[in-house]
Amino acid sequence: METTFPLPSSDTVEQEEGTTLRPRFDINGLITAVTTDHQSGEVLMVAHMNAEALERTMATGIAHYWSRSRKTLWKKGESSGALQIVRQIRIDCDQDAVWLKVVCERKEDTCHTGRESCFYRAISPDDGRLKILVAPPSAD
Amino acid sequence: METTFPLPSSDTVEQEEGTTLRPRFDINGLITAVTTDHQSGEVLMVAHMNAEALERTMATGIAHYWSRSRKTLWKKGESSGALQIVRQIRIDCDQDAVWLKVVCERKEDTCHTGRESCFYRAISPDDGRLKILVAPPSAD
Repeated sequence: METTFPLPSSDTVEQEEGTTLRPRFDINGLITAVTTDHQSGEVLMVAHMNAEALERTMATGIAHYWSRSRKTLWKKGESSGALQIVRQIRIDCDQDAVWLKVVCERKEDTCHTGRESCFYRAISPDDGRLKILVAPPSAD
Repeated sequence: METTFPLPSSDTVEQEEGTTLRPRFDINGLITAVTTDHQSGEVLMVAHMNAEALERTMATGIAHYWSRSRKTLWKKGESSGALQIVRQIRIDCDQDAVWLKVVCERKEDTCHTGRESCFYRAISPDDGRLKILVAPPSAD
């Protein structure tokens, strides 16, 4: 699939204050995507997008990512039915990261571990151990 | 500076459900860090951390990152005084991304453009243009 985003500008003002989308893909052709729940503001996941994933997300309003492990376009929830409906996409100052605010069709399936967010553990400041804030779903 | 994080585990259950911090640094020795405002939940910035930045953040409660452009440890706000006080650090399922909830000492200095968040532009779903949600601070 052909995607036609303009290249990042060498003019910092244009890149940072302009109104043209000029995603700054990295050497692997990816930008970082942070996905939050539109209502709670909770960070659900951090993933990556290539040009096609960004283009598909913009065109369909459904979150698409690039799976670095499978090396394929990844329409989140395509197999589970837990699609992410995109309410807003923001881009950061240098245009190498996007922030997706989404509504999840099935919240519990955001993380492959069966949780609403991939960020279910906190790092304890005292001893550096991980504290599990959300238990895994029971097997029954 | 020596840092001593255990290596990521090849045992998925240990990596994803364990209570040992085993950051999965990428080939450049970095993990992704998403920083949100502790109160509003707004995504402020996306940056990266090497082992030392993560270790310093944990030890001091002040956000430290790795500056990919300057190739140095970056204590956010060290020159401007706009430190980020860390209220919670979370880590994701495969331990290659952290989420910092912070309180900013000077909110307006989070982004180098003088805004509270780097994500001050939204991508318009209709035409793909960027809509500036927060104007740059005036020069006077």
